[in-house]
Amino acid sequence: MAAPLHSASPFAAKTPCDSLWFGADFVTLRDGRYNIIENGALAVKDGKILWIGPLSECPDFSAPQRTDFGGGIVTPGFIDCHTHLVFGGDRSAEFEQRLNGVSYAEIAAQGGGILSTVNATRDASHSQLLEQAEFRLRPLLAEGVTCIEIKSGYGLSVESELKMLQAIRELGATQAVEVKSTCLAAHAVPPEFKGRADDYIDLICDTLLPQVAQENLADAVDAFCEHLAFSPAQVERVFNAAASLGLPVKLHAEQLSSLHGSTLAAKHHALSADHLEYATESDAEAMAESGTVAVLLPGAYYLLRETQCPPVELFRRHGVPMALASDANPGTSPALSLRLMLNMACTLFRMTPEEALAGITCHGAKALGLQETHGTLESGKVADFVHWPLARPAELVYWLGGQLPCTVVYRGEIRL
Amino acid sequence: MAAPLHSASPFAAKTPCDSLWFGADFVTLRDGRYNIIENGALAVKDGKILWIGPLSECPDFSAPQRTDFGGGIVTPGFIDCHTHLVFGGDRSAEFEQRLNGVSYAEIAAQGGGILSTVNATRDASHSQLLEQAEFRLRPLLAEGVTCIEIKSGYGLSVESELKMLQAIRELGATQAVEVKSTCLAAHAVPPEFKGRADDYIDLICDTLLPQVAQENLADAVDAFCEHLAFSPAQVERVFNAAASLGLPVKLHAEQLSSLHGSTLAAKHHALSADHLEYATESDAEAMAESGTVAVLLPGAYYLLRETQCPPVELFRRHGVPMALASDANPGTSPALSLRLMLNMACTLFRMTPEEALAGITCHGAKALGLQETHGTLESGKVADFVHWPLARPAELVYWLGGQLPCTVVYRGEIRL
Ligand SMILES: [Zn+2]
Ligand SMILES: [Zn+2]
Repeated sequence: MAAPLHSASPFAAKTPCDSLWFGADFVTLRDGRYNIIENGALAVKDGKILWIGPLSECPDFSAPQRTDFGGGIVTPGFIDCHTHLVFGGDRSAEFEQRLNGVSYAEIAAQGGGILSTVNATRDASHSQLLEQAEFRLRPLLAEGVTCIEIKSGYGLSVESELKMLQAIRELGATQAVEVKSTCLAAHAVPPEFKGRADDYIDLICDTLLPQVAQENLADAVDAFCEHLAFSPAQVERVFNAAASLGLPVKLHAEQLSSLHGSTLAAKHHALSADHLEYATESDAEAMAESGTVAVLLPGAYYLLRETQCPPVELFRRHGVPMALASDANPGTSPALSLRLMLNMACTLFRMTPEEALAGITCHGAKALGLQETHGTLESGKVADFVHWPLARPAELVYWLGGQLPCTVVYRGEIRL
Repeated sequence: MAAPLHSASPFAAKTPCDSLWFGADFVTLRDGRYNIIENGALAVKDGKILWIGPLSECPDFSAPQRTDFGGGIVTPGFIDCHTHLVFGGDRSAEFEQRLNGVSYAEIAAQGGGILSTVNATRDASHSQLLEQAEFRLRPLLAEGVTCIEIKSGYGLSVESELKMLQAIRELGATQAVEVKSTCLAAHAVPPEFKGRADDYIDLICDTLLPQVAQENLADAVDAFCEHLAFSPAQVERVFNAAASLGLPVKLHAEQLSSLHGSTLAAKHHALSADHLEYATESDAEAMAESGTVAVLLPGAYYLLRETQCPPVELFRRHGVPMALASDANPGTSPALSLRLMLNMACTLFRMTPEEALAGITCHGAKALGLQETHGTLESGKVADFVHWPLARPAELVYWLGGQLPCTVVYRGEIRL
């Protein structure tokens, strides 16, 4: 290909770049819209997007590597901004028991439910946790995920929460995917603290979080605000401790009832409030005001057979950015497909395909505080992108299952 | 491996076989149950299962190829017994329009809906139909499908129905998957016959089906029995014509209302009645009596946001075998994942994981009349099987998305 030198180009002739990619439609997701560049070109330098635009306007780069996609579409790398991918064991046996008619009470009496995951996580070695998480990570990566958030929250002790966070950090260091780590020690009251939730909050605030911050084991702090977990007052103590350590916050809020945790999260300038089935208009207003992202999790909604949808129309009206995530976890959402979440968001929550795709790119990035560097195809951003054998972006949402990417580019290099 | 010679073996020492597979748990699905052989072994000869049993009882076969799976589970190859995989175009643009608030009436006025698929299918060349179907087939094969049924029904003219059936036959001849072809000319009233459905039924019975039979283009004949399609009386005419040509029948029945099409199907000894959301107890009794399989299609149920589940408990009680399928089609179920159907059958229809897995193996085979040769791991059956990196069969159902097979064996050979 001899790319023409565009007259208004800010680049000198033969400006060097590392690679040039063209011959496809680039779905940039700029400003959360498709913003498609038909027959586009994208130049990469030092792992970042140096230039993107129509091929007809492409400067005359000197590129040692030139890839003609020969059709199809290119999207930003997918961002899964809410997962619990690191845990011991799985709960497929319990899943099967429930469908065979065993009651929740019987399963709990056998030590099932979240406590079984806590026990298995505490028992697992660092390398077991890592190996199992890598196994679950693989299908997500195969579908084009280039950035993933992973939470702790099944250790529920200082030692085991640190073990989880170390495993998450090690995944980030060893896997070809950007990993953001979130400390979710305030996920459930551990059995040792039964009836003494405030004492556990003390342990989190006074002992665990300072150590997490000192060892740089987390990029954010999360909590579960719900009757069966922690009250808004307890969550606020965690948020204050996080703020004093310079850590941004997030919150599991309004999943099963309305406690206005999302308004609390907004007050603390949280990156995101997540689930939100029971969020109200005042919650949406508060989130819009603070720029807090609404992270919607249709996998858990589907698997729990919920009937109360998150208020998508309110978020839309108030301009709250909506992200989507797999919520990959052993209990309520053993989901290892972010593409399926696109379809579920549209089918179950009536989001549009464009909103859904923005939810796992542009707005997913914002939910992780990465909006300056990730989530869209724009010059200056990290060169994470995916080439699909599809004609239009809605096909990513329309098909249930379906074609894997042709090529995933991570930090400017083809990921094998 | 030095396989011991079992004392009671019917095989002489060093009986030759083509390959021996061991080192995994074999989920045989015999009699529609898991029937797991722990640490099993399976010998293949001439593309069929020569022997299967515990490794400790394995006869002393002479096998040029020996594969130690090193853990995991082995299931029968998956059978997708109801698809519409051959069609022109797709309807992702219409899908997106609907979610963007465009009404059904407006979409219909633009020529949308099934008629857009009919037009695109009529316009497509044989090789275009083939290429598009191969593209959709790939993700199904990647998930372990070794046998698939594909229906015509978007041609709705003698010429175009024959073109579809020829494409289906060619897929069977060129792809590494067993393909069963079904003539579904009675899918919808073609625009040329608007208000004259009976005339179209005449064309099917008098002209199309005899030609289909003569050219051996179909293994079964199907119809859509519904207010918006064909009446039971019209379906019965198709069934009688099929019977006179020696072709077995199937029926799309009770999807949106109760017309007792499934009882009619049973009366004609149909292989299956499919959808069945509105089937009644008398329908279930008739199906049990005739051995007609209930093919359940959770993808369409999910995508249409139906609320009426098929009467699983009635089928269970009356001993009607339940199969599951993707219903892959451009309108109501663009589903290219049979594993997802396992989860949806359990989550939405409350089937058990064991029933779901039987639905895409043992009972899927029966829905195609292949119960003597396919669908279970038993000696004498075709050697179609799949090795999974999982510990127990319920994991195939539990994970949404997730791991692809390690190995797919089709007619005794590893499929690449
Ligand atoms: Zn969560
Ligand atoms: Zn169908």
